[in-house]
Amino acid sequence: MTEVPAGTAVQTSAPAASGRRGRRAVDVPALVERAREGEARSVARLISLVEDASPALREVASALAPHTGRAQVLGLTGSPGVGKSTTTTALVRALRQAGKRVGVLAVDPSSPFSGGALLGDRVRMQDHAGDDGVFIRSMASRGHLGGLSWATPQALRVLDAAGCDVVLIETVGVGQSELEIASLADTTLVLVAPGMGDGIQAAKAGILEVADVFVVNKADRDGAQQAVRDLRYMQSLGGRYSEPGGWRPPICRTVASRDTDNGIDDVLAKVADHRSWLESSGEGHRRRAERAAREIEAIALAALRARIGDLRGSAALGALAERVVAGETDPYAAADELVARL
Amino acid sequence: MTEVPAGTAVQTSAPAASGRRGRRAVDVPALVERAREGEARSVARLISLVEDASPALREVASALAPHTGRAQVLGLTGSPGVGKSTTTTALVRALRQAGKRVGVLAVDPSSPFSGGALLGDRVRMQDHAGDDGVFIRSMASRGHLGGLSWATPQALRVLDAAGCDVVLIETVGVGQSELEIASLADTTLVLVAPGMGDGIQAAKAGILEVADVFVVNKADRDGAQQAVRDLRYMQSLGGRYSEPGGWRPPICRTVASRDTDNGIDDVLAKVADHRSWLESSGEGHRRRAERAAREIEAIALAALRARIGDLRGSAALGALAERVVAGETDPYAAADELVARL
Repeated sequence: MTEVPAGTAVQTSAPAASGRRGRRAVDVPALVERAREGEARSVARLISLVEDASPALREVASALAPHTGRAQVLGLTGSPGVGKSTTTTALVRALRQAGKRVGVLAVDPSSPFSGGALLGDRVRMQDHAGDDGVFIRSMASRGHLGGLSWATPQALRVLDAAGCDVVLIETVGVGQSELEIASLADTTLVLVAPGMGDGIQAAKAGILEVADVFVVNKADRDGAQQAVRDLRYMQSLGGRYSEPGGWRPPICRTVASRDTDNGIDDVLAKVADHRSWLESSGEGHRRRAERAAREIEAIALAALRARIGDLRGSAALGALAERVVAGETDPYAAADELVARL
Repeated sequence: MTEVPAGTAVQTSAPAASGRRGRRAVDVPALVERAREGEARSVARLISLVEDASPALREVASALAPHTGRAQVLGLTGSPGVGKSTTTTALVRALRQAGKRVGVLAVDPSSPFSGGALLGDRVRMQDHAGDDGVFIRSMASRGHLGGLSWATPQALRVLDAAGCDVVLIETVGVGQSELEIASLADTTLVLVAPGMGDGIQAAKAGILEVADVFVVNKADRDGAQQAVRDLRYMQSLGGRYSEPGGWRPPICRTVASRDTDNGIDDVLAKVADHRSWLESSGEGHRRRAERAAREIEAIALAALRARIGDLRGSAALGALAERVVAGETDPYAAADELVARL
């Protein structure tokens, strides 16, 4: 379950909520309108509002809702050094050539895109080589292992509402982040590189379970064929898609660099195949509903945690604690009473 | 806040709840009665029931409550290698000589006492050299860093109800465990050893904040005087007790080994001084109430998390998720509806 700051789901009745930079009033409907027209500054501002758990967060979420559900969400994960950033760049280039509007959320602390997150520049929003059809946003990661920020689903909604056809979420494949990205993405691309023992590592880390499409990057290097064989062998052992009629993750080979995008078209073709399968099988809708359910749960839990937190120092909790200390009740019975008060 | 397994606070209506080893019925009142008479096997069984989050957990907690609140709780923490286990042994010996009934909860994965926890032998309960006035219990730690098990407060209650005058909790001083132990203990002993740079490390780790009594162990070694000076210097910089009228943690020197207990009597004298201060200042009661409040909160949150978890796959959550996917509502508004249903 995604961690959500305790305060985020607390109701705010302030009609004109203020942003983190002081008492500046936020005109949320106007911001959403301008974001839908593709204005980068408004998109950036909305993401900042959700990322900072601003008091306007709920108003933003409510205003975005009618305009969401269109974007295709691609997750991109892999160990450090496999070439996630060059692959992201190549994918963005190819999607732009196909006339798609693209959003990028970079949660990979090792990515140059997300350098800003580490350096504290979390409001950076830049055009991709002067292209106003690309939004790139670095997200602060939850920790040094690159777990997704709790705000990632909301940032996704902002980019979705801003008319992005595709949103790419890039994260380093360590810790929990590859599981989190798979729960957010329609299609998860797992990158491996030859000679890194990534196949074996991937199997250990359960990355096989999250991949919809494998990409063996740096496929011009020694060991690429072996990496493909390793992946095929591990696929033969079962996994997420081992049931009949399921999707068998294809294995693409790419050589993504500043100069060449070899194999990227094939990756996008496989992504399109997966999208068709998601639609025809009903799995796509099931995943989105599951994702929404998990998000609702996480927000509800954060709200309840905040309510319990609000009771700190209260007479009610103090009285219950005194009764436990006196041996008049036990902590479980006292917790029942506390819950009954919420 | 202490992590509690989600299921532990779910009400069970089973009149004769079963232990983890199958369908064996548990006669909780009889167990508590025998534990109060000092029967080691019953004490062990009760700790197992709380540690395994057995369905009888709530009944156990309720039955223990009237018999708790007597034991003095000593926390003992310090880096690996400072001699926590020999010091624990020496303290137990001295307390026994003073006619006290003693319980030991060893959560230190590096301790020989808690070896059983790592080896899976979590039900070990042994007499201390044939002495039926000592209960020693290894607790499974929450992770390899030795964080306290969520069940530690309950195990403490079992030993308290079993008539222990003193319960010693031994944990390795890494990660969060020294903060956790300080929140459980009436008096926290922080052990350092000469020449380990422990003073500096302690300051960094915030261990100064948790110490009620410092023990420089291996005080016959070179550098003991320097370790004492380091601690005094750091104390001069402030900390938990820097306010006027507060308790200034004394610094004791010990040479605890299998053969000698030099300095242990002084440690126990300082512990007694601290206990007097806790009573006269009201801080002792305040700490116990605070501890109970945190525990109630943690159990309440776990109960709410379990209730939300119970909604997984439910029609209500499914319908809310569908409305979010369709853009008819946003996750925050949906979470409000979910919370309203609880």
